[in-house]
Amino acid sequence: MREYRIPDSEFKRRWEKVVEEVRKKGIDILIAQSNEADFANVRYLTDYWPIFETAGVAVSKKGDIALLIGPESETFALDRSRVKKIYRILQYRESAEPEYPDMELDDFSKVFREMVGEKVRKIGLAGYQIFPVPVYEAIKEAAPEAEIIKSDDILVNMRIIKSPVELEMLKESFRISEIALEEAIKSMNSEMTELQLVGIIEKALYENGAEYEGHPQYVLSGKNSNHAIGRPGYDKLGKGKLIQLNIGARVAGYSSSVGRPVCIGKMSSEMRRLVEAGLDMHRKTMEWMKAGVKASEVAKKFFEYGEKIGVGKNLLYGPCHGLGMLEVEKPWMETNSNYYLEENMTFQVDTFLYCDEFGLRWENGVVVKKDGVEPLSGKLMEIIEV
Amino acid sequence: MREYRIPDSEFKRRWEKVVEEVRKKGIDILIAQSNEADFANVRYLTDYWPIFETAGVAVSKKGDIALLIGPESETFALDRSRVKKIYRILQYRESAEPEYPDMELDDFSKVFREMVGEKVRKIGLAGYQIFPVPVYEAIKEAAPEAEIIKSDDILVNMRIIKSPVELEMLKESFRISEIALEEAIKSMNSEMTELQLVGIIEKALYENGAEYEGHPQYVLSGKNSNHAIGRPGYDKLGKGKLIQLNIGARVAGYSSSVGRPVCIGKMSSEMRRLVEAGLDMHRKTMEWMKAGVKASEVAKKFFEYGEKIGVGKNLLYGPCHGLGMLEVEKPWMETNSNYYLEENMTFQVDTFLYCDEFGLRWENGVVVKKDGVEPLSGKLMEIIEV
Repeated sequence: MREYRIPDSEFKRRWEKVVEEVRKKGIDILIAQSNEADFANVRYLTDYWPIFETAGVAVSKKGDIALLIGPESETFALDRSRVKKIYRILQYRESAEPEYPDMELDDFSKVFREMVGEKVRKIGLAGYQIFPVPVYEAIKEAAPEAEIIKSDDILVNMRIIKSPVELEMLKESFRISEIALEEAIKSMNSEMTELQLVGIIEKALYENGAEYEGHPQYVLSGKNSNHAIGRPGYDKLGKGKLIQLNIGARVAGYSSSVGRPVCIGKMSSEMRRLVEAGLDMHRKTMEWMKAGVKASEVAKKFFEYGEKIGVGKNLLYGPCHGLGMLEVEKPWMETNSNYYLEENMTFQVDTFLYCDEFGLRWENGVVVKKDGVEPLSGKLMEIIEV
Repeated sequence: MREYRIPDSEFKRRWEKVVEEVRKKGIDILIAQSNEADFANVRYLTDYWPIFETAGVAVSKKGDIALLIGPESETFALDRSRVKKIYRILQYRESAEPEYPDMELDDFSKVFREMVGEKVRKIGLAGYQIFPVPVYEAIKEAAPEAEIIKSDDILVNMRIIKSPVELEMLKESFRISEIALEEAIKSMNSEMTELQLVGIIEKALYENGAEYEGHPQYVLSGKNSNHAIGRPGYDKLGKGKLIQLNIGARVAGYSSSVGRPVCIGKMSSEMRRLVEAGLDMHRKTMEWMKAGVKASEVAKKFFEYGEKIGVGKNLLYGPCHGLGMLEVEKPWMETNSNYYLEENMTFQVDTFLYCDEFGLRWENGVVVKKDGVEPLSGKLMEIIEV
């Protein structure tokens, strides 16, 4: 079993870059937030990965980087984090709000004193969408006169373009997801529940090197498959139902998802029409993508093409979203996305069509290159009738 | 396969109670937050369970209850939620911050207009520890003159005492966790990695009725086992190492964890001494608990007893924490916990001892009764040498 691990040299490169960006931005200290479901910012800079408690990472203009953890994670963090400066702060505790009356903890005043030194004037926050009010308030209390600004862009811009190591981890993550996809298709039968198939998928992921699921697996059958976002349940897979599989491994912090619509038995003609239309749009989307193309153009073409082939009313959202540590990252590709695709950006091409009775999704990862995209997955791109 | 589901009558009871508490508290509307990792408040009142996006639940003094979701979760929420009033609000979107330029969404002004009517004067927030700044700001913007107060206690107090249905779901959850524990012990070998054993555990959980993991599984071997909070990795289980298993299923939203220290081969004498001391303290803790006992007394006895038997320096935190939807819930049992145990409170008796080389945890669920506690798990309470 290969042990997937980002080399120290890659972290060193990230640290140098993030300090440079903090200085350019004119902030004294950047504080980024992560939690168990959304671990990316902290993992990206420290390799630490919160569970039960939340976590933060602080980067000062002096060039210091520190991991911020809750009261119980110290031994784990000491072994796991590449950043050796660690503060234990109450506000990163579990949501059950234990008080740890006999523990001596750090606070943001100490962080600012040691990492900034002089009076803190400007604080940048990242992971703003998940930034908890208690952490925000503790920061304000420790530096009441400081200006606080949203600074997601620093880490987002760094994370958008993938390094060779990151691309390798993504490839491995997709490779493992496809092994689990094949195992799922081999194992499924009409009497099995959605959740039982999830168990088979999870076993295959961990057996083949995943460190965790890239996302909770989708095994959504029949009407459940029209949930753009959904959870598997106790329904039997049955015969003739559209069964949507989205299978995702995570490797060294990099997540993937491979999406295929499957049927036990024959697909109905309407099902087949939409499944084939989805596959057509999925392939077209990949053809439209290459470095230099404006993201909004791909999204507009996607919706126009959908109208043209008669599935306009079956579409819910744009054709792609960013991919990296989280299976859904910035940037999204929407009709108002005014950025240009660049080499080594990675996307999930995520072609979701739905109607009242079912939904279906073709999903694969791609790397943007000069002349097009390089696929990160692509097995079983066909009508799958088991 | 049994389909685990909380009956509608139970939700009706919860809705009546929460509206009564909102009125008593003198707030116009309560807004509770959940996310993928910490789903409890929303699940408790709606049965909906966020994934990728976050979610909220609003309860007004008029008696209205609404589910608040992100832009992509509508079809899922319509099928899943017991509450039929649903608002789609941008601030509950994914952390990748898609903008959904072509979607018409709701906002908090609409929520307040429809659910409160008159001018909103007092807003209560729950799930404060995970309440995201953007949701908080959107609420303030929609009701700039309203007073905003932390109101976690309303739902916490309701959730602390378990109903018969809740106890049944917890029992099922532990039953499934123990099946997976036995499967893990039967399957483990020294060449297997921690993560490969996680895969076997996950398969057993889903195969036997779990809807998800109660928490990410712990398979922590050797030095990794001294992480009070930790993540499994690529280390082989090996021979003679302490291997800490914590296995948790989730059923109808109710989570469990069964913790056992295991060794492939013979435990060393120091390992055996600490494992036996932990088991002794674990059993004693259960003996000290019954309705009417002050929580701090149990915690104080725990630390005193640890000193007495020579493991005082091996303890990190108090003897129990609340159990319910989350595997770690309020209330914790600490030396400053000034509440009294009540009938049908549920706890994880969580006896964690650690030293430099390893850590170990005996963990079982219990229900507080008049004369003691009723165990929710208890298989393999012995020295486990495979």
